[in-house]
Amino acid sequence: MRVAVMTAPGEVRVEDRAEPVIVEPTDAIVRLAATCVCGSDLWPYRGVEALDGPRPMGHEYAGVVEEVGSAVTTVRPGQFVVGSFFASDNTCEICRSGYQSACVRREAAAPGGAQAERLRVPLADGTLVATPDAPTGDLVPSLLAASDVLGTGWFAAVAAAAGPGKTVAVVGDGAVGLLGVLAAKQLGAERIIAMSRHESRQKLALEFGATDIVVERGDAGVAAVKDLTGGLGAHSVIEAVGTQESMMQAINATRPGGHVGYVGVTHDVALPGLELFFSHVHLHGGPAPVRRFLPDLIDRIWTGQINPGRVFDLELPLDQAAAGYQAMDRREAIKVLLRP
Amino acid sequence: MRVAVMTAPGEVRVEDRAEPVIVEPTDAIVRLAATCVCGSDLWPYRGVEALDGPRPMGHEYAGVVEEVGSAVTTVRPGQFVVGSFFASDNTCEICRSGYQSACVRREAAAPGGAQAERLRVPLADGTLVATPDAPTGDLVPSLLAASDVLGTGWFAAVAAAAGPGKTVAVVGDGAVGLLGVLAAKQLGAERIIAMSRHESRQKLALEFGATDIVVERGDAGVAAVKDLTGGLGAHSVIEAVGTQESMMQAINATRPGGHVGYVGVTHDVALPGLELFFSHVHLHGGPAPVRRFLPDLIDRIWTGQINPGRVFDLELPLDQAAAGYQAMDRREAIKVLLRP
Repeated sequence: MRVAVMTAPGEVRVEDRAEPVIVEPTDAIVRLAATCVCGSDLWPYRGVEALDGPRPMGHEYAGVVEEVGSAVTTVRPGQFVVGSFFASDNTCEICRSGYQSACVRREAAAPGGAQAERLRVPLADGTLVATPDAPTGDLVPSLLAASDVLGTGWFAAVAAAAGPGKTVAVVGDGAVGLLGVLAAKQLGAERIIAMSRHESRQKLALEFGATDIVVERGDAGVAAVKDLTGGLGAHSVIEAVGTQESMMQAINATRPGGHVGYVGVTHDVALPGLELFFSHVHLHGGPAPVRRFLPDLIDRIWTGQINPGRVFDLELPLDQAAAGYQAMDRREAIKVLLRP
Repeated sequence: MRVAVMTAPGEVRVEDRAEPVIVEPTDAIVRLAATCVCGSDLWPYRGVEALDGPRPMGHEYAGVVEEVGSAVTTVRPGQFVVGSFFASDNTCEICRSGYQSACVRREAAAPGGAQAERLRVPLADGTLVATPDAPTGDLVPSLLAASDVLGTGWFAAVAAAAGPGKTVAVVGDGAVGLLGVLAAKQLGAERIIAMSRHESRQKLALEFGATDIVVERGDAGVAAVKDLTGGLGAHSVIEAVGTQESMMQAINATRPGGHVGYVGVTHDVALPGLELFFSHVHLHGGPAPVRRFLPDLIDRIWTGQINPGRVFDLELPLDQAAAGYQAMDRREAIKVLLRP
């Protein structure tokens, strides 16, 4: 089958690799309806994160179960499923507390890469959630978004305690930040400040529920958010970038006692203790426990309440994955959907 | 009047200084029944924090109101009062959300030092809380403790989400850590792990409600907490030291999805982004909004539910403040009460 493989920074090739097979009795094999390129895939693409050899890429997936191992009981061949980037048993104490992305049996859900035709998913019962029926084609991009970017933006909004009466600011206008806007809106936030200087992303943020746009960054961005909030800062700030500047922008734009939900993978970040201490913020984040939210998110998509698939503004055949990476790297596309 | 003044690291003298007077109409003058030395006073004493000249010391106080400014309406001369180390108006949006230590009008509550005979307290209405009546002498140490160390330990326990069914670990066996144990117990925690290698402090921790003692520190301390919690870590960890090692010990001893409440003043601390990201902890802390908790804490003391004054294991006349600093610096005393 065809799989996108990163061989070096800036180098993605689609190669032929062996078909996945059931290894553990808890595995499932899924034929992908769609997959995509993640903002986090750009870290190794840009050389920020080291590659230790050719890496099959991708961890976002939605598709049809083709085969299950002998121990799998909750999903069956023929079902359309969505899963998270981390496989989880969904039964351990950590999973039951809602942190499936820190499951005691956690492993990569797409060990062979999800930018592929087929995928072996471990711990299928705890990882995959089936849709009520076979989805119509227009729902597939949104269901795929639930696999990571929607679930991650949703977790960030929950971690930032977005809700009724709250002013929420969003640092980062990638797919996760934009879906953080959507999540904050769904969770009832009163005011949503999207921080973006790109017109197409501003437009989507407004469509998803943003009430204000701030184009400034860093200290100027913090000042702009304070200006909009009586000098106090936002109640809730979603951080969806993962750099030192974006983390400090998020912390400093939050009022004392407010909440920062951070989901940008924090590369080369060191938070200064005294500044954090006097900020009085609540800080929570990490790899999103997407599995916690999947049933609810699938329901909201299925019933037409949300259309997170709007973040895909470029669709390519899997064989053109390299062009997809390039478009995202150059910020010519927000997020690229790949069709196997 | 007599005031303890730090003139250089390791140098504390009790000097004669002018009596405080009402400066603003919102001020009150309080005659101190008791005051004390804080763990944070040891930072400049040890030269970790720079002095920019002789500094009148102390920020913990309880005593009788002698005079109030013309705008003060809620406390009156003759009342016994307790206040926090930060003066707050208790009416701004930040105060009303429970973060009086980040009040938009915040200022030091003891600008002239509280290791003194008398004290001018700004924003008296928003800062001071009167006791129901004149306290008996045995209650004074506990009421004094409410001014900072109890309020700070309590905030740490709340920030760490201590409560029924929770296992709480406490990093730091100073007065704040020990009162964090007491707070966790009062908040209903099921199991409380005190981390201490000093027998007298272990004993007080057990008296305050600790169920387990861990003597190891750093990685070994983390391993010991994990051993006691099925390998997962504590639900809630109170950090009451403020060093890089203690912060990382607290974060690493917390299970994914758990809460760290940190109140040690974080000197020279830099939290590594990726480690924090993958820890999945909630992190909250800062200078405790003691004012939020004072009415409840005074009530618990007044009705004999708690006896936080037990942390004072050395009492000296104010004139012997230098000996008090020395005893705390050498860890010969947990906390020193000074009688003006």
